[in-house]
Amino acid sequence: MNTFGRNFRVTTFGESHGKALGAVIDGCPAGIALTEADIQPCLDRRRPGTSSLVSPRREADRVEILSGTFEGVTTGTPIALVVYNRNQESGDYDALRDIFRPGHADYSYTAKYGIRDHRGGGRSSGRETLSRVAAGAVAAKCLERYGIGVAGRISEIHGKTTPEGMEEAIRTARQEGDSVGGIVEVVVSGCPAGLGDPVFAKLDALIAAALMGIGAVKGVEIGAGFAAARMRGSENNDPITPDGFAGNNAGGILGGISTGQPIVARIAVKPTPSIEMEQATIDTGGDERKIRIGGRHDPCIAVRIVPVAECMTALVILDALLEQEKYRGFSARKE
Amino acid sequence: MNTFGRNFRVTTFGESHGKALGAVIDGCPAGIALTEADIQPCLDRRRPGTSSLVSPRREADRVEILSGTFEGVTTGTPIALVVYNRNQESGDYDALRDIFRPGHADYSYTAKYGIRDHRGGGRSSGRETLSRVAAGAVAAKCLERYGIGVAGRISEIHGKTTPEGMEEAIRTARQEGDSVGGIVEVVVSGCPAGLGDPVFAKLDALIAAALMGIGAVKGVEIGAGFAAARMRGSENNDPITPDGFAGNNAGGILGGISTGQPIVARIAVKPTPSIEMEQATIDTGGDERKIRIGGRHDPCIAVRIVPVAECMTALVILDALLEQEKYRGFSARKE
Amino acid sequence: MNTFGRNFRVTTFGESHGKALGAVIDGCPAGIALTEADIQPCLDRRRPGTSSLVSPRREADRVEILSGTFEGVTTGTPIALVVYNRNQESGDYDALRDIFRPGHADYSYTAKYGIRDHRGGGRSSGRETLSRVAAGAVAAKCLERYGIGVAGRISEIHGKTTPEGMEEAIRTARQEGDSVGGIVEVVVSGCPAGLGDPVFAKLDALIAAALMGIGAVKGVEIGAGFAAARMRGSENNDPITPDGFAGNNAGGILGGISTGQPIVARIAVKPTPSIEMEQATIDTGGDERKIRIGGRHDPCIAVRIVPVAECMTALVILDALLEQEKYRGFSARKE
Amino acid sequence: MNTFGRNFRVTTFGESHGKALGAVIDGCPAGIALTEADIQPCLDRRRPGTSSLVSPRREADRVEILSGTFEGVTTGTPIALVVYNRNQESGDYDALRDIFRPGHADYSYTAKYGIRDHRGGGRSSGRETLSRVAAGAVAAKCLERYGIGVAGRISEIHGKTTPEGMEEAIRTARQEGDSVGGIVEVVVSGCPAGLGDPVFAKLDALIAAALMGIGAVKGVEIGAGFAAARMRGSENNDPITPDGFAGNNAGGILGGISTGQPIVARIAVKPTPSIEMEQATIDTGGDERKIRIGGRHDPCIAVRIVPVAECMTALVILDALLEQEKYRGFSARKE
Repeated sequence: MNTFGRNFRVTTFGESHGKALGAVIDGCPAGIALTEADIQPCLDRRRPGTSSLVSPRREADRVEILSGTFEGVTTGTPIALVVYNRNQESGDYDALRDIFRPGHADYSYTAKYGIRDHRGGGRSSGRETLSRVAAGAVAAKCLERYGIGVAGRISEIHGKTTPEGMEEAIRTARQEGDSVGGIVEVVVSGCPAGLGDPVFAKLDALIAAALMGIGAVKGVEIGAGFAAARMRGSENNDPITPDGFAGNNAGGILGGISTGQPIVARIAVKPTPSIEMEQATIDTGGDERKIRIGGRHDPCIAVRIVPVAECMTALVILDALLEQEKYRGFSARKE
Repeated sequence: MNTFGRNFRVTTFGESHGKALGAVIDGCPAGIALTEADIQPCLDRRRPGTSSLVSPRREADRVEILSGTFEGVTTGTPIALVVYNRNQESGDYDALRDIFRPGHADYSYTAKYGIRDHRGGGRSSGRETLSRVAAGAVAAKCLERYGIGVAGRISEIHGKTTPEGMEEAIRTARQEGDSVGGIVEVVVSGCPAGLGDPVFAKLDALIAAALMGIGAVKGVEIGAGFAAARMRGSENNDPITPDGFAGNNAGGILGGISTGQPIVARIAVKPTPSIEMEQATIDTGGDERKIRIGGRHDPCIAVRIVPVAECMTALVILDALLEQEKYRGFSARKE
Repeated sequence: MNTFGRNFRVTTFGESHGKALGAVIDGCPAGIALTEADIQPCLDRRRPGTSSLVSPRREADRVEILSGTFEGVTTGTPIALVVYNRNQESGDYDALRDIFRPGHADYSYTAKYGIRDHRGGGRSSGRETLSRVAAGAVAAKCLERYGIGVAGRISEIHGKTTPEGMEEAIRTARQEGDSVGGIVEVVVSGCPAGLGDPVFAKLDALIAAALMGIGAVKGVEIGAGFAAARMRGSENNDPITPDGFAGNNAGGILGGISTGQPIVARIAVKPTPSIEMEQATIDTGGDERKIRIGGRHDPCIAVRIVPVAECMTALVILDALLEQEKYRGFSARKE
Repeated sequence: MNTFGRNFRVTTFGESHGKALGAVIDGCPAGIALTEADIQPCLDRRRPGTSSLVSPRREADRVEILSGTFEGVTTGTPIALVVYNRNQESGDYDALRDIFRPGHADYSYTAKYGIRDHRGGGRSSGRETLSRVAAGAVAAKCLERYGIGVAGRISEIHGKTTPEGMEEAIRTARQEGDSVGGIVEVVVSGCPAGLGDPVFAKLDALIAAALMGIGAVKGVEIGAGFAAARMRGSENNDPITPDGFAGNNAGGILGGISTGQPIVARIAVKPTPSIEMEQATIDTGGDERKIRIGGRHDPCIAVRIVPVAECMTALVILDALLEQEKYRGFSARKE
């Protein structure tokens, strides 16, 4: 299942060292001004090397719109986005062909498919998120029309919450050939009440799936999240006043449906599994091996996940919004 | 969207004070021995009044199979399960017709539908989970054939982890007309490697959606979960040995695909929103109101969510298993 | 797959001689007045014994709404409809337990499931359409709000097109222990332009699937249909004038999208496979058998398929309408 | 909805005069040898100018695999196929920018989207089928492993059934600036019994949707099809013998499930709507216009639809086959 969404459906493809990565968006409304210039900045933002905290590798990813627009405006037909991989040299990875890297999908992919593109993780590479970010940029453009914004930020790295603490945690980890985890928070502003469906397609369930579906994410919480499990009802319930809710422990969602307050989600991102420190593992023959993973890996992938988490959240919100429009239109008909 | 699953698809219906609740299972394999006696014990288990920790209300929920079996065996056609509501008296709830209860879905449902069955929460009631448990019992029966088991337990209540501490937290909350939250852990044993799909339908993403889709759940984590965000890579990566993984911070899932280790998920359950303590809220006219919610509500719904969390997890695993069978069968053909 | 539709989703269940048949409707808009009295007349209409042309068996099918309405109005939650089978005696069918009836699904079901409810066809019985008709009645109610009507009629029986010719064809077939096929035409009036999606979900493709999915239907055509294959372009193209289309060979659909003209579909219904005349077949052991199928079977099921074809068409149109509302709402937002 | 299939899912994109057309295949089994050389011949076959019966336009469509294979073998990840449009010059079509061509989707697209890529039909162009043929070629490769073949042929043109008659019908139509319709027959050989699902996803319903979803198709029939409507039961029922069915009026499908006989489907293709003869129409302002559509259009598109109908049928069969594998694998487990 490489398709996401029910109304604004995004199908992604591509491996880290294949010819290209991309996405096909099906269900984008017609009439939206859209060119590559609307998407490229989002890709640039997720690019490595844009701050001192991330890997200095150069990737110049250029997105191209292959279909779905005419004279710079969406036509309602599928929008195909493609990013060609400039550097498909995969010599670096030959040494890893027969080894299962700990913390990576190598072992489970092999168990599933019996075959695996070992070059840089193939489909399980973080590069796959490029397709999501490209599609999310189009979703964000659609959400603008509703005045809805989605903003993510790093809220914690290796238990540290100050900018200095976070930077230091990363710097130290890199020096030691190790890596660190972190927490990313995403906030949706301007979201109307009524989005989401009761029962299985609760808005928080959709957000949880969207965010847990990002590689390296091991936890998702909404509003007070795990802290709510340690609260009392009198403390956790957000009182309602004539001016709105007096508190947001709910994180903007009650009974799976948005309340009109900001939607707040947080995700736990594990430390980058690729580390230079020696690790014990096995090869495909089942024999013991020791490995050190070289190359320029981000010591903290949480940093690079910020735009991905924003994009996935934007996709969920837009999808729920289109779902709502369906019934609004019907209800607006005179009986 | 009241349907869950792609292969073993469960569609649920019913309100807490309507005529009946139930589920239709589409995609259950033929040839499985199945009668009401396989399902009833699971319903009994989620029933209130079965321990000192839960509400003493009596509900005698009898499940009936309306279709899909012939001479006690599934035929491959849809299995309809129904539980009639014995007590549809809703007088208790008349006082709440025009009031939005804090922490409940009253406000958001009204925003969404413009209309609301206010009797006991209607569709947003915890009683809705009855349908899930009935369907989950069938899924569990199917999983038996693979030797897969799903077991849940309360791991924490109001921050307390010992049986005595948890009991006391609940007792105190009840005495004070308040409620407490808790944490539920679900473990899947016997799960083969290779379940789940990369990218959007990662096994952990599906589990996250399934569990976050249970009312009152505000967080989901897999394996080390949020703790992983505070770890280093060298600590979080599970080394691989010829005898298997030496650790399970991954919670049995790498790259969204099961590794063959036990799958471990934990959920944060908020305190029961219905409390006797006075709360500030508004009515549907927007005017200030004070309410105390009487009746016999569970002071800690986490306790009752255990079988629901098990059932939702069983549904996810079975669905992924059927997905895997699809490709196994194909691959088994000689080229 | 016992679910039909993307937006107004109908899941059906039930066998002809099981406990009950029914449907769960998911995605019905809130705020529609709906009671059993809106549905029952449609079920009565499909009942046998309502004219001299159909079987005189008595079935008193009473529909019951189990959920999804509150105080006589839909709430947006799933609507469960159930019809209990009054007469589950299946002694008549014991003789057929081990025989594959020609023209029926007996052989193919056994090949698929390895198990089969042989009583009256089980899930493959014409009685299954009861669920569709019940759900279609709700769809028709929704379409009323848009002024859209769906009307079916028999247009041909055994090649005869006059009322007298058709009656005689049926009478003769019955006397001879045989049966006859026929053609049913369905017309949608008041349908707005713009429904349907290009490529795979063309409105005519959806109608074709809906109608071919009715048991005994062997062909579907839209507008001029098979006659178009014998025309020239200059003859088949409907000219367009300032007052609209001057002709409707297109049957109200161009490029898979409705044009605003009446939508016209016709289906070929095969003769009832259950006939008293002796037929050659085999039993489950593979041995030759001769059978005569007794009981009171309709000599021409085309007659009874009329309301089913209407209902399936209504489901398609409503589904496409809700799809259109989704994008209309979006486009109506100021940029 | 530009996605087709449940298990082997094909998402297509692209307009006739945009940058590129293509498809993303999700759900293709791993381990199948696949290169561009497996797909290109199918594209070449649908190319115009390959016989005296079709348009002499030159199109050199080169397919490229962007993802989903590794060292010439499928990996189980999405296979992206792209064909760049060599000739995007659309000057020819400028005259048509504001005119609704009779028999085309121009009017209905405008009603739906409010915007339209008028260049050669855009997304509603026959060129869109290129994506289907590319994807269908991959499906056909998968079906080979099961010994299943899908073969189409023209069975009638403008009512004529001999090769000479058909050629003459086309030649005359071309000389007169007109076009003719035809009938295409598709036969699936080697298909096992048990494919398809009862009720809505009957194998014939899926085939009907697949074929009616091809532009210009106005009717679909299975086996005896419309002729069955003129038969008696004793004539239409295929007797069953120890050696198999003695006849195939059913067209290989009973109760929506394959019987193991050849599956036979026929489609009615309307005459090419683009003709040189003068036609009455209107422009987007609603004013009367006369048009003659120049260029080198096929006088009989039925001819070019043959490979498309094969490919769509192959997609349906493969999808149903994977569905069957799912339950076979389950049933093969010891209880």
